[in-house]
Amino acid sequence: MTSSDTTERPTYGDIEAASERLRGLAVVTPLLESPLLNEIIGGRLLIKAEPLQRTGSFKFRGAYNRISQLSSKERERGVVAYSSGNHAQGVAAAAHAVGTPAVVVMPHDAPAIKIDNTRAWGAEVVLYERACESREARSREIAEERGLVLVPPFDHPLIIAGQGTVGLELADQAEAADAKLDAVLSPCGGGGLVSGCATAIRARCLGTDVYAVEPEGFDDTARSLASGSRERARDDATSFCDALLAPTPGQLTFSINRDLLAGGLTASDDEVARAMRLALMYLKLVTEPGGAVALAAAIAGKFDCRGKTVGVIVSGGNVDPEVFGSALARAA
Amino acid sequence: MTSSDTTERPTYGDIEAASERLRGLAVVTPLLESPLLNEIIGGRLLIKAEPLQRTGSFKFRGAYNRISQLSSKERERGVVAYSSGNHAQGVAAAAHAVGTPAVVVMPHDAPAIKIDNTRAWGAEVVLYERACESREARSREIAEERGLVLVPPFDHPLIIAGQGTVGLELADQAEAADAKLDAVLSPCGGGGLVSGCATAIRARCLGTDVYAVEPEGFDDTARSLASGSRERARDDATSFCDALLAPTPGQLTFSINRDLLAGGLTASDDEVARAMRLALMYLKLVTEPGGAVALAAAIAGKFDCRGKTVGVIVSGGNVDPEVFGSALARAA
Repeated sequence: MTSSDTTERPTYGDIEAASERLRGLAVVTPLLESPLLNEIIGGRLLIKAEPLQRTGSFKFRGAYNRISQLSSKERERGVVAYSSGNHAQGVAAAAHAVGTPAVVVMPHDAPAIKIDNTRAWGAEVVLYERACESREARSREIAEERGLVLVPPFDHPLIIAGQGTVGLELADQAEAADAKLDAVLSPCGGGGLVSGCATAIRARCLGTDVYAVEPEGFDDTARSLASGSRERARDDATSFCDALLAPTPGQLTFSINRDLLAGGLTASDDEVARAMRLALMYLKLVTEPGGAVALAAAIAGKFDCRGKTVGVIVSGGNVDPEVFGSALARAA
Repeated sequence: MTSSDTTERPTYGDIEAASERLRGLAVVTPLLESPLLNEIIGGRLLIKAEPLQRTGSFKFRGAYNRISQLSSKERERGVVAYSSGNHAQGVAAAAHAVGTPAVVVMPHDAPAIKIDNTRAWGAEVVLYERACESREARSREIAEERGLVLVPPFDHPLIIAGQGTVGLELADQAEAADAKLDAVLSPCGGGGLVSGCATAIRARCLGTDVYAVEPEGFDDTARSLASGSRERARDDATSFCDALLAPTPGQLTFSINRDLLAGGLTASDDEVARAMRLALMYLKLVTEPGGAVALAAAIAGKFDCRGKTVGVIVSGGNVDPEVFGSALARAA
């Protein structure tokens, strides 16, 4: 696989290669378990804690896997990306690690913590109006004007392979804990994380079902899996899961997910808020709304975990303290 | 060292033995680092994340190290402990692991999460009025009435050795990260954690200064270190650091701390609230007030971390969501 081939599916070997590249740079995030939470659920939850990843979400993995493969000429000029905030920080930190400039196009109403930290990693932030402009078009303009390489948020084999290292580590850590995973639940926006993880998990864990979990109203992947072709989220859908508002699955990610996933699940904002509260109480982990959506599905019984061992990916923890506080209050 | 000898200082070898006993039962908690937080501080903070420990604080380590050494006769009858809540959960979970009954005497105004989880681990909880009764006397009564072994919260060599495994792991993990620790800051109530950690760190890390950090007003260890004999906290002192309200250092812990510590520091409740907010933003870690007191001292410059590499022990994360939410708001 070359970095310019953007249509070919990454293999398990590509994920292993990504894991090698990330060694010493990305955190091998812990697999958390709470006996008391397990008791409430009636099953065993093994929580892959990506809030503890560099930049506070899994996005550093894919971004670094792509940006570290730039040619030296490309590296001189830099990269551009569009993102609601986690990919932004991942790209900014990966560009910083590689030593290349980064421009990131972000919605003006992205969480302040995401905008601030993207800048703190040294990236130039360009804000856009979510309602009026296309961030993709704006990014392509900037890429052309300045000769930058566009680092897409999910629909690229190197990005997917990088995110797949979450699944690879989960398989390793479950093995080390003598746990046979019945299922893995992963948050899903554009589908980069879940497609990469499904590639790793399906290669490593015989008989483990992988599910994409989306916020209610943004269940485009779930409906696409059911219909067999790429569907769109409703235009009037809203959710406080700001990281998971991609309106439709990626082309490459969906072609992988269609083959590898057992299905799609959803969780409501209320269920997500309750998961954030329980993650505080039992896991001591700060989760952002989108990051907690798979945990919410497990806790709310959208996937029946009783008597099962379930890997749950918590994908990020970049949440403004005030939003976190109100989620706690909402679920009280 | 036998389990009945309660006056002899634990050695580094005793801490290694505790570490062996805890293998597979206690979590080897991760050492977290945030490049952005480091930039704010101007130094390198390596955060030992004990909220991710079984029961949400380091206390399981010492409790299990003691309770696993009961004779089979003692084990049949069970244990009793008094605690503001973290030792309570540690004792309850350790007794559960060993298969012995546990009674825990707790103040009626302890955080609900601490009381609930102690019960969830199967212990019998006896509540007392903080103002009117001596919890130690009440525990001794119960021990005598029912023939139970009293598991003290800090002043016992097996407890201290168990808590010292935090320092042993910190030394291992700093070495693995190629970091030479200039100093280690540890929360301090009765002094079990800091005395155990100082024993490990002073044995392992040449030239690393270890400091006890207390809430303002409960600086009995700091003043005892300065005067050379055990001082008491002021009777009218208050703090929301519920885990660190021990009025005076332990006899054994102080004899160790007097020899091994570089000094005592304090942090105000406002400084602690700010540390809790920054731990959410940069570490994605839920901290309880007492658990964040050493981090608060680092962030507030009570210990000057600029240009230094500092190990900071965050000792627990058992906080009611409402208290957490108000700490976030207080520090906004």
